[in-house]
Amino acid sequence: MDPLLGDCSLEVLRQRRSWKWMRFPPDVIPAWLAEMDFDLAEPVKEAVRAVISSSDAGYSRPQPDGFGEAYAAFAAQQWCWAPDPGRVFAVPDVMTGIAEVLYATTPHGSGVVLSPPIYPPFFFRLRLANRKIIEAPMRRHAGGRYQLDPQAIDAALARPDAAAYLLCSPHNPTGRVWSRDDLTMVASLCDRHGAVLLVDEIHAPLALPGVRHIPFLSLGLDPDLARRTFTFTSASKGWNTPGLKCGLAVVERPEAAAVLAERWEALLPSHLGAQATIAAFRDGLPWLDAVRGQLDDNRALTGKLLATHLPSVGYQPPEASFLAWLDCTALGLDDPVAHFLHRAKVAVNRGLDYGEPGRGFVRLNMGTSPDMLQEILRRMGSSIGAL
Amino acid sequence: MDPLLGDCSLEVLRQRRSWKWMRFPPDVIPAWLAEMDFDLAEPVKEAVRAVISSSDAGYSRPQPDGFGEAYAAFAAQQWCWAPDPGRVFAVPDVMTGIAEVLYATTPHGSGVVLSPPIYPPFFFRLRLANRKIIEAPMRRHAGGRYQLDPQAIDAALARPDAAAYLLCSPHNPTGRVWSRDDLTMVASLCDRHGAVLLVDEIHAPLALPGVRHIPFLSLGLDPDLARRTFTFTSASKGWNTPGLKCGLAVVERPEAAAVLAERWEALLPSHLGAQATIAAFRDGLPWLDAVRGQLDDNRALTGKLLATHLPSVGYQPPEASFLAWLDCTALGLDDPVAHFLHRAKVAVNRGLDYGEPGRGFVRLNMGTSPDMLQEILRRMGSSIGAL
Repeated sequence: MDPLLGDCSLEVLRQRRSWKWMRFPPDVIPAWLAEMDFDLAEPVKEAVRAVISSSDAGYSRPQPDGFGEAYAAFAAQQWCWAPDPGRVFAVPDVMTGIAEVLYATTPHGSGVVLSPPIYPPFFFRLRLANRKIIEAPMRRHAGGRYQLDPQAIDAALARPDAAAYLLCSPHNPTGRVWSRDDLTMVASLCDRHGAVLLVDEIHAPLALPGVRHIPFLSLGLDPDLARRTFTFTSASKGWNTPGLKCGLAVVERPEAAAVLAERWEALLPSHLGAQATIAAFRDGLPWLDAVRGQLDDNRALTGKLLATHLPSVGYQPPEASFLAWLDCTALGLDDPVAHFLHRAKVAVNRGLDYGEPGRGFVRLNMGTSPDMLQEILRRMGSSIGAL
Repeated sequence: MDPLLGDCSLEVLRQRRSWKWMRFPPDVIPAWLAEMDFDLAEPVKEAVRAVISSSDAGYSRPQPDGFGEAYAAFAAQQWCWAPDPGRVFAVPDVMTGIAEVLYATTPHGSGVVLSPPIYPPFFFRLRLANRKIIEAPMRRHAGGRYQLDPQAIDAALARPDAAAYLLCSPHNPTGRVWSRDDLTMVASLCDRHGAVLLVDEIHAPLALPGVRHIPFLSLGLDPDLARRTFTFTSASKGWNTPGLKCGLAVVERPEAAAVLAERWEALLPSHLGAQATIAAFRDGLPWLDAVRGQLDDNRALTGKLLATHLPSVGYQPPEASFLAWLDCTALGLDDPVAHFLHRAKVAVNRGLDYGEPGRGFVRLNMGTSPDMLQEILRRMGSSIGAL
């Protein structure tokens, strides 16, 4: 591995006190929660150390100085897209941004359309926010490739109680990076149905070689749709800092910016997180490149290891990020997560938490060293071989 | 000053990038937002450095290991009260905890009773959360001492739309520390009217010499009331770490704990913040003692400086924390905040933001060195003398 990423030895990783590492006993390898095992980027560490050295642990502001500019420069460099830094707002995390925007823009009790399988908090957090979940499941083609289903989205948005569409782009857990046609289809359906459009682009900095992530707002939206379109991203996946509590909301139109500005108190990020985010976007590219290179290797290695150890498991290498969405239906296990936890001592996520289309699937975290990945899949394979 | 607190020189403080320091031009002394100017406590710095050194920036968990225990030990030492560590939950900040509990326990559109003058986000954040604000103003006695008004609270809670009472204890901005009788009165009214009871104890670690803060849950509540009573606190005021994004919710009954547990995803704190919080409660007492000693001096010094420079301004030294609630009505200024900002180059908070009873008042932040306090009040005095 690139020395920038550290060595991911279990000895070192077990000193971490994050939830990923504290939840299970030490004989279990945690490959569940979406954080990576690599060392932090030096500029991120340095930013936090500088904040602490100057005892600068006070309140952040809704639009920290240099925050929008750092993101805009990163977006220009990565995606040839130059958002207005004045339309970039800090948020504590993407889900909080989404929930607050839904409170502000949709009626109490209204429906939010999602395309499962999809990130579990989209279901449970939005239900707790008194929004109904309306499912427009993706299509799954032979070979296991997922595609958004325009007919299903259209029908769901046509329901009188549907107020918003929530897109995950790149998609968690399938790892799909949507094409311009996919995104344009979503925009035109939301436009037609008058829906609020929320786009979670948290995994965007981790789009892997061979695809091009397209920021939703770079499409050039109809102004009427742009007024009610909110996109969210973060340095937290790309640079592995979810515990620093800072994401971003990016909008195009003043009407959307006003929604975020009005709710600033609910959306204040961690000041440390905001400073680390600026450092990541501004100075963290060499580290991000090393991670993307490693994840590119890891997704291929996962395919090879599955072929050896678990040949009946279905797998499409993700186009972005570090999550492998594994079709375990052919294994015939009642509860694949419990099986792998108890028999293989590997913790993965339950597919069913991603919606009904996830039944029989597990989500495996590949954001680690090849050695660890090898050990994870060897254990999982042995547990099946032993049945 | 105690060397633990640093020297609060403007030269050093202007390197901070928190909102307090970034909002105004460098010729303005910021004495507004509720964060202090002192150096951070070494155990807090060390905790953050340790997290960063081990690249441990992943997700926190709803009840971080050792978190409830650290708070319970602090509470026992400070207030002879031993909460159950299993009933202590981390939250990103007190307001977010309050908002989520209100979403969970009160009807959409229902009313929350407050006793102004009071912390401005209680008004605007709860209105954005679709709750009506019902005011039960405090009484202000001759000499300026504030008291909760049982009749007003009773009448407000008797309204059919009133669903909750939100108490600030110790009280911001008046600095009152409530007596056992005050708290019992609030409990009995909430009990009688079936109201959800939320208690913001964020300033509790800063109760100053001469008074005793009583944690609400140490009262021994009727079980029926305890089921719907939620208290909130944080290390963020006591140890000056609001930018680390971590507070606590503490409850007594399993029914209340279930509300917090169900909403865990909306309540995840910063992992760095949680680790810093554990360090503060566990190892931060010498620093806290130094701060409380300094604030005790500062509140007396403020009285002396006001007598010299602004003799017509009303002031009751706070019993807790670092906020001076100044009655500027006798100055006859249209807009005291604008006056002090432009004429004295001192930024303070607008009393009216704390509710109608705050008209003509300003809130001044005394959490700084005596030298700075002297300069702040000298500037404010000169600006009036020059009228």
